Formats: sequence, structure tokens, C-alpha cells
Amino acid sequence: MEYTLKVKWGDTDAAGIVFYPNFYKWMDEATHEFFSAIGYPTDDLFREHIALPLLEAHCEFKKALEFNARVNIQTTIVLIKEKVFTLSHQFYCEEQLVAKGYEVRAWVSTANGKPKAVAIPEQVTLKLHQQEEGEKNDK
Amino acid sequence: MEYTLKVKWGDTDAAGIVFYPNFYKWMDEATHEFFSAIGYPTDDLFREHIALPLLEAHCEFKKALEFNARVNIQTTIVLIKEKVFTLSHQFYCEEQLVAKGYEVRAWVSTANGKPKAVAIPEQVTLKLHQQEEGEKNDK
Amino acid sequence: MEYTLKVKWGDTDAAGIVFYPNFYKWMDEATHEFFSAIGYPTDDLFREHIALPLLEAHCEFKKALEFNARVNIQTTIVLIKEKVFTLSHQFYCEEQLVAKGYEVRAWVSTANGKPKAVAIPEQVTLKLHQQEEGEKNDK
Amino acid sequence: MEYTLKVKWGDTDAAGIVFYPNFYKWMDEATHEFFSAIGYPTDDLFREHIALPLLEAHCEFKKALEFNARVNIQTTIVLIKEKVFTLSHQFYCEEQLVAKGYEVRAWVSTANGKPKAVAIPEQVTLKLHQQEEGEKNDK
Repeated sequence: MEYTLKVKWGDTDAAGIVFYPNFYKWMDEATHEFFSAIGYPTDDLFREHIALPLLEAHCEFKKALEFNARVNIQTTIVLIKEKVFTLSHQFYCEEQLVAKGYEVRAWVSTANGKPKAVAIPEQVTLKLHQQEEGEKNDK
Repeated sequence: MEYTLKVKWGDTDAAGIVFYPNFYKWMDEATHEFFSAIGYPTDDLFREHIALPLLEAHCEFKKALEFNARVNIQTTIVLIKEKVFTLSHQFYCEEQLVAKGYEVRAWVSTANGKPKAVAIPEQVTLKLHQQEEGEKNDK
Repeated sequence: MEYTLKVKWGDTDAAGIVFYPNFYKWMDEATHEFFSAIGYPTDDLFREHIALPLLEAHCEFKKALEFNARVNIQTTIVLIKEKVFTLSHQFYCEEQLVAKGYEVRAWVSTANGKPKAVAIPEQVTLKLHQQEEGEKNDK
Repeated sequence: MEYTLKVKWGDTDAAGIVFYPNFYKWMDEATHEFFSAIGYPTDDLFREHIALPLLEAHCEFKKALEFNARVNIQTTIVLIKEKVFTLSHQFYCEEQLVAKGYEVRAWVSTANGKPKAVAIPEQVTLKLHQQEEGEKNDK
């Protein structure tokens, strides 16, 4: 899955480059786009009391980004467990890898008030497997 | 009511000054502090299904702020109607007025699902009147 | 000029609607798009030591926006003075006016270190006049 | 070094908890406070053309945080190399570890236009070593 964006003026800091927490904001946006793309928009999930909270997130920064830079994020699934999955996000600008990160998220039901990790439904797991890195390389 | 803060690195933009929407973020913070100060913390209100959504917000910017600047916000009530009230926020940095703004907010019940403006409870109105600009000048 | 966006998860707050300072972030984004559209991208202006700082900003909120809402911002010039101009921004969601605001900005040179408002160049003024509300209605 | 903060309304999202990129915003704030605490405020460094850009950042999330939660961040140095250092940040709320992360940052000179990693000055390295986790345990 591919998500593209443009660096906004408000994303920059006094050093003239992107303030680093924005990369995580973009990973979050890419994940929401990813679930829309596979047929499970997160606003629908939210209404069905399913949330995808973070357990862990990581990013390596290879090149600073400036205002108005076009960024392309490549998102793939790299690990699917019973209740937890890992998404990889690679950030490209002008064909160059500028950052790469990952997010570990849980499949959580909030139906009974207190959030609780539950098994990812089979049909979702199936869709996720179709987006795995291995599968992508076969295309 | 007085609310103080320090300009964070992430509040700045590539021009080396505060990205302007942050002034509204700070007005929002000052309003939450204001309601705590008069005995109605907004997290309590929230749990009682009362929200204070914005109808209008305005700010004039007189002097740019840089990273690490100490800012002092003076918040007063300037108008109280049945369901709506107006807060004035004055931003000072080193004794100088650097910005001033206001927020018009409604007293809204979300108890029945759909948000609905309701009359501000009498005891809250009383507390608000005690914070009015006129009162403040009498101190 | 028209600027479209989608409400991101991170734009919402615990009330389930857009945190209001984001409307100003979007006005800022719309203004940058506006200057690109008339042939004066703000990243070019920035490199030529021209900034467009805010003197004033205002917004009225008519309807709360939720996650994933599609928003369309209509930006027009409503006032052009020697060194200062006013942009109007109207926010639509599903054909409905959900918010409207304006920004008063100065044309500022930062070429000599200290920012200083200077006359808007004639060719820019010309372009701005072509985007005035009156002109727009003639289309 | 200890940095305390309160979760702001604008830090939350529609799930009623902190939007996760804010943890990185807080790590950034804690790092700036850390350098102030050891006598090298980052605004001074910035004026001397020294920046501390991120090479990598990581965070594990153990417990969601709600509006108005008091958060205490414990920041220590865990690794100091010639031009690069690693800060560990532990987030506590009501004595409970709610998140922990780290940042890998470079010591960068921007004096000649293009940013370039340079050796951390000896007196800074000395100060950093005094803040190392081992040292802290000796207190």
C-alpha cells in the first residue's frame, strides 16, 4: 500500500526541517489508509468497537525533509500473530529512502468498556496475509 | 486566572517562530486551567457529559515568539449568556503583550447522544461572574 | 482556490471531533496552496526571504467534524492593502458550510535579519486581485 | 533528569487516550530539558549552530494515558559515542511505568550551511557521562 503526502509548513521546526514526531503521525495515517485499502476502514472498525492501539513504534531517520517535500510511504505487513501485527513503513522522497519505521499494534475490542486484545478475525488475517512482504514481491 | 508555559521546539516552524495555530492550542489549555481554577475541572465535566465546544475563536498576533520563550496567559470571562460564554486570553512575554484572543464556547450536554446546548448551571454562572473582568479589577 | 483534505485520526480529540486549533492549521495549509495556485509558492518566497506572518485569525465553527470527514476549503482574497491582505476560508463537508474563517497576513521581508513589512510587489497584487471574491463571482 | 507534564485535551484522540506520536513530542521536550539541566540549553546550542537531530527513536506503550494524567519522564544517557548519543526516557503515571523509549541523536554542526556530525565537545561528554545510568544508580 502506498500513501503520499506533502510536508506542511506546520510540520517543520526552527531548524527548517520536519519535527521528528511527525514521522509517527504519518505512520499512523498510513496505517489508517492501509486498512481502508484492504476493506476495513478504521472508522468502521471504531464504530464496531475495534481499536488498533500501539504496543511499540520505531523509526530511523536517514535524511531530513524540508517544507513542501513530496513523501511516499510504502506500508506492508511484516508479522501477523493471533492478536498482534506489525506494519513496516518506508518513507521515500525523490526515489530516496529517507526514513523507515515499524508499528506493532494490537487488535482490541472496546465493546465491554475496558479495552481487551482479542483474536484478529480470520477474514482480516487473510487480507493481511495477502499484503505481506513476501506476497508483495510476487506481484 | 494565569497560565504559564514555555515555547517548545515542536511549536516552532521553519521561520524560527511559533506556528500560529499553537496560540489556539494554548487558549484551549488556558480554558481548561481556568475551569479547574474555579472548581469545575473539565475532565470531571467530561465524565458528567458536559462539553464546552467552540463557536468562535479569534487571535491577534503582535509579536512573534521564539523557542523557549516564557509565555504568561491571562484569562478572564468577558461575557456570560444563558448557554454561551466568552473567554478573553492575553498573552504576555517579558511583560509585553504579544497576542490577545478570545473564545466563544457553549455549555453542551452530550448525555443524550447528540450534543445539545443547555443552560449553564446557576452555581457555575456565579463562579464565572466572580471571574469577570470587572471583578478582577476590583481586587 | 479549493483545497481538500480528510480529517485524520490525530486531528480528533477525546470528544470524538476535530480539536479546534486544527481548523487554523488547515487555513494555513490552504493559504500555502493558494499562493502555489497563483504562481507564488511559499517555499520559493521563503528562499527569497519573504514570509507571510499572521496579524490576525478568526474562525466560526458551525458543525463538528469527525474522523475521516472529507473537507473542502474555499479560499478567496477579500482585502488587499499595501503591505497586508486578508484571506477568507470557507470549510465545506458534504456540501454543508461547517466553518468559516479569515486570516490577516503581512508581506514581510526577512532579508535584513529583522522581519519588516514591505509593499506587496505589483505583479503579486495583480494576481491577488484576480482571485478577489468579486472576480470569482464573475466566473 | 526528571520532566513532568500533564496530558492536554489536544493530546487525546477519538479513542479518549493520548494520540501516540505525542509520546515522541514529550521525549523531544524531555531531551531539551535534559540539556538545560546539564548546562547546555538547546536554544544556546542552536545559536551556536549546533543541532541534535534524531537518527532513531523507539517507544513501547504499556498503558494508555487519558486527559489530565500527570506524567513524569525520567531521562538518562545510556550510550555516548564520538558524535552520537542515546537517551533513555521512562514515562511514569501514578508511580506506574506507562511507556519507555529511547532516542539516538547526533551532535551536528550547521555552521557551514550543510549539517555535519562532529565530535561532541569534551566538556559536554564529561557532563553526559555524569548523567549515565550507572552514575544515577550511585546517588
